[in-house]
Amino acid sequence: MDLTIAELVESVGGRLISGDAGKLITSFAALGDATSDQVSFFAGEKFGDALAGTSAGLVVVSEDLLGLVPADLPSAIAAVGDAAVIFDKIVGEYGQKPPAFVPGIANGAHVDTTVEIDPGVSSVLPGAVVLAGAKVGRGTRISSGAVVGERVQIGEDCEIGPNVTLCEGCILGDRVIIHGGTVIGADGFGYEFEAGRHRKVEQLGIVRIEDDVEIGASTTVDRARFGETIIGEGTKIDNQVQIGHNVVIGKHCIIVAQTGISGSAKLGNYVTLAARVGVAGHIEIADQTTVGGKSGVIASIKEPGGTYFGYPAKPMKDTLRARKNLKQLGSLIKRVKELEKKLEALDEDK
Amino acid sequence: MDLTIAELVESVGGRLISGDAGKLITSFAALGDATSDQVSFFAGEKFGDALAGTSAGLVVVSEDLLGLVPADLPSAIAAVGDAAVIFDKIVGEYGQKPPAFVPGIANGAHVDTTVEIDPGVSSVLPGAVVLAGAKVGRGTRISSGAVVGERVQIGEDCEIGPNVTLCEGCILGDRVIIHGGTVIGADGFGYEFEAGRHRKVEQLGIVRIEDDVEIGASTTVDRARFGETIIGEGTKIDNQVQIGHNVVIGKHCIIVAQTGISGSAKLGNYVTLAARVGVAGHIEIADQTTVGGKSGVIASIKEPGGTYFGYPAKPMKDTLRARKNLKQLGSLIKRVKELEKKLEALDEDK
Amino acid sequence: MDLTIAELVESVGGRLISGDAGKLITSFAALGDATSDQVSFFAGEKFGDALAGTSAGLVVVSEDLLGLVPADLPSAIAAVGDAAVIFDKIVGEYGQKPPAFVPGIANGAHVDTTVEIDPGVSSVLPGAVVLAGAKVGRGTRISSGAVVGERVQIGEDCEIGPNVTLCEGCILGDRVIIHGGTVIGADGFGYEFEAGRHRKVEQLGIVRIEDDVEIGASTTVDRARFGETIIGEGTKIDNQVQIGHNVVIGKHCIIVAQTGISGSAKLGNYVTLAARVGVAGHIEIADQTTVGGKSGVIASIKEPGGTYFGYPAKPMKDTLRARKNLKQLGSLIKRVKELEKKLEALDEDK
Repeated sequence: MDLTIAELVESVGGRLISGDAGKLITSFAALGDATSDQVSFFAGEKFGDALAGTSAGLVVVSEDLLGLVPADLPSAIAAVGDAAVIFDKIVGEYGQKPPAFVPGIANGAHVDTTVEIDPGVSSVLPGAVVLAGAKVGRGTRISSGAVVGERVQIGEDCEIGPNVTLCEGCILGDRVIIHGGTVIGADGFGYEFEAGRHRKVEQLGIVRIEDDVEIGASTTVDRARFGETIIGEGTKIDNQVQIGHNVVIGKHCIIVAQTGISGSAKLGNYVTLAARVGVAGHIEIADQTTVGGKSGVIASIKEPGGTYFGYPAKPMKDTLRARKNLKQLGSLIKRVKELEKKLEALDEDK
Repeated sequence: MDLTIAELVESVGGRLISGDAGKLITSFAALGDATSDQVSFFAGEKFGDALAGTSAGLVVVSEDLLGLVPADLPSAIAAVGDAAVIFDKIVGEYGQKPPAFVPGIANGAHVDTTVEIDPGVSSVLPGAVVLAGAKVGRGTRISSGAVVGERVQIGEDCEIGPNVTLCEGCILGDRVIIHGGTVIGADGFGYEFEAGRHRKVEQLGIVRIEDDVEIGASTTVDRARFGETIIGEGTKIDNQVQIGHNVVIGKHCIIVAQTGISGSAKLGNYVTLAARVGVAGHIEIADQTTVGGKSGVIASIKEPGGTYFGYPAKPMKDTLRARKNLKQLGSLIKRVKELEKKLEALDEDK
Repeated sequence: MDLTIAELVESVGGRLISGDAGKLITSFAALGDATSDQVSFFAGEKFGDALAGTSAGLVVVSEDLLGLVPADLPSAIAAVGDAAVIFDKIVGEYGQKPPAFVPGIANGAHVDTTVEIDPGVSSVLPGAVVLAGAKVGRGTRISSGAVVGERVQIGEDCEIGPNVTLCEGCILGDRVIIHGGTVIGADGFGYEFEAGRHRKVEQLGIVRIEDDVEIGASTTVDRARFGETIIGEGTKIDNQVQIGHNVVIGKHCIIVAQTGISGSAKLGNYVTLAARVGVAGHIEIADQTTVGGKSGVIASIKEPGGTYFGYPAKPMKDTLRARKNLKQLGSLIKRVKELEKKLEALDEDK
């Protein structure tokens, strides 16, 4: 960004309280990470310790928190209305921006002649491929290297990332974001064992992704055996998540990285699965359930709103109690030995 | 599909038993998922509960099971010979079909002039790249975005999915299916530590994939240090599986999603690894071994045919017994406390 | 390779001790894997058992170890100076070679006119895409299907693999290797929950990859919320590793396959994470820490140089002791039962 403190403070309508107005600020960072040429912000009492330890060149501080700023900070201090809002503005202005949306079908993109797309309002970047019968909504961008399969339907204002694969027939709603390398609609994993060989069970369904879903990088969502694998409205899925065929995920769920959900499992709404969770096939997880990291859910969770943990996943308090008990095992072994000795002594005494 | 019940039943040679012949059926689903405009099927006594609870618009029922159909179902009922076969036929007719095989090298595909391929019987889709010295068999399709490296050999009737990477020199048999985003033949992970730095050990072998192997999406199989990493005939591998360098997997194995197999491990034939299993390097797993989900195999399994579970993986019955013991730990702690009290009382009595 | 034993031994300056000089050798393998048409090597006493059991057609043996060669081996034997060095030379000569580096922008590559690249010394292969404002250093190769985003900066002598995605603004040092399908710089996973929906928190930072880093296939490294996600110099990362936003990894670390590191975690230098480790967000791991496979690190590790294991990860010896205790649980249950009986008997005796 390369602005003096004076220029930066002026540009956000702030008021310089202390520090060298002519010092150069080149970027921005959180209080704990910021160096002497970076701007940071202080917008809540709970960040007092971070503020006290910061090396930032400049800290923008919410007006009503000025009283909490230590006198001996190395940082210049500027007062602003709401420091969080102002900092977001700085980040938005000087941070990495996503590539500008340029409508049109770029040179080096391949769009089949049967594709339903208006190049005046949609964007296909170089190296992207859109195959026969697909439909691309207005405001949607297909990034380089992405492959949109036959008869795929994509809604409006979607962002299909680089090297993404959308297989034939899949359906995406509006404002769907899919990050690089993700594969939607590959065949589910289904075989019948016959005469010593695994015979493939054809996978003839699709994946349906509802509005406002975001899916991270290198995630895989398999097409249904028949019917639909469904990702519900507003659900957010992280990187390297695996979702099997015929899974149904409800609305506004959070599925963190490296989680795997086996075929035909059903998640309700507002379910949160932390990182590296495994969910067995054909089970159900009730609304608003939270499952802790690295857990394995192998039976249906029917009561909504609970917090589960462990493998097999149990209510959090049960797993924590079990872990607490486990910590006593070493001393328990000693106590039993002690008891055995005493009892033997008693026995001899008789 | 948009057929009336009468049209649909006629098209499969069935007999309408009850229900409105003029009602429109638009798609198909399992009994538990089907809605009033969908057809489902009933082909086995064990699905009686699902049948009793279905909302399907039409259920095709195996002739010999008609007696088990409840009288008060909301669904129209049609009798057919074998309902499972008929339903498969409906799904095959009206489900998503894989893209039609169109021989030829598409516009927007890049095939090096030295590649051995007959465009009359093989297919390279737009955006696919086939590099120097590669060989593509008859009936094989290279999908959009796939990269076939130098000197790769692909057999007949293979399906190389979108955005797949086959690195230089790898060899695929016939009827191999590789789903989107998978990478075959990247370098193994090998370094020597010298003078405070990790020096790369060159990875100069290949991956050999035998006939009838299917590999899911975003899976990675590393090339051998030298020699070959081998995936045996008929083996099926799910999504997001990681297979290290010099691994040898036998024939007709099943490797479920998110499993990882470390370098130089050897699996026999008919081995099944459930989801999220880890296998340590340089160990062997005997024929027909089954390993349960999320297990970690850290020592060779030499007896064929066993079922293993846990981390470290033990014979299933040992792990289950250990888990059963673990459940008693809470009460054991109480019992020991009780014993201590009693013993103390006895001691005082003396 | 197809050389007679005589030709091969001569080509490496060796001396044939025993065996048929006219026999054909077609490839190479380790002692345990080699067949009668392959060459192998014996370069250390500890491989004596492997030597005794080998079926190799030819074994090259370090001159000073000739005395250890059993008389009854089926293999021809050749003496050389250092057999490991000679074998590496054979492998380098006759093994799969990475594709030759051919400078220039290939037909079928798309390089934006604003890209800073010298086609005389850099290489962009068919099907690769380099977008506006990017910079590609001398000696660097962009493989087929790779997408280099806007304003990405790549240093010298880098190898960007097939179907790799480098998102906008990311910065790579010199001699960086990135294998197929990996995605660098996708958005971090950040949302705020408002009015029943997850609102996306913009991810405006970048990923910075320092010199001599190697990253495996299908790995994902997310861009920072703001600022930088950093992979330190000389660090090596395996396949299918997930690295969250704002993570900082030190220099010369080893991160094995299928590991996941949550947002804002900080790893020191020379840290080793074995396969399938999970690291929680916002924690720190001290220099030279080693974490065993499948562990979950959920609290900072502040002492450098330790070895940790388990979930939650504890010092290795603590986890091993806990496991040892656990093995006693079954017998402990029996011993407590025994004690209860004896005590009851004593009680009745009174």
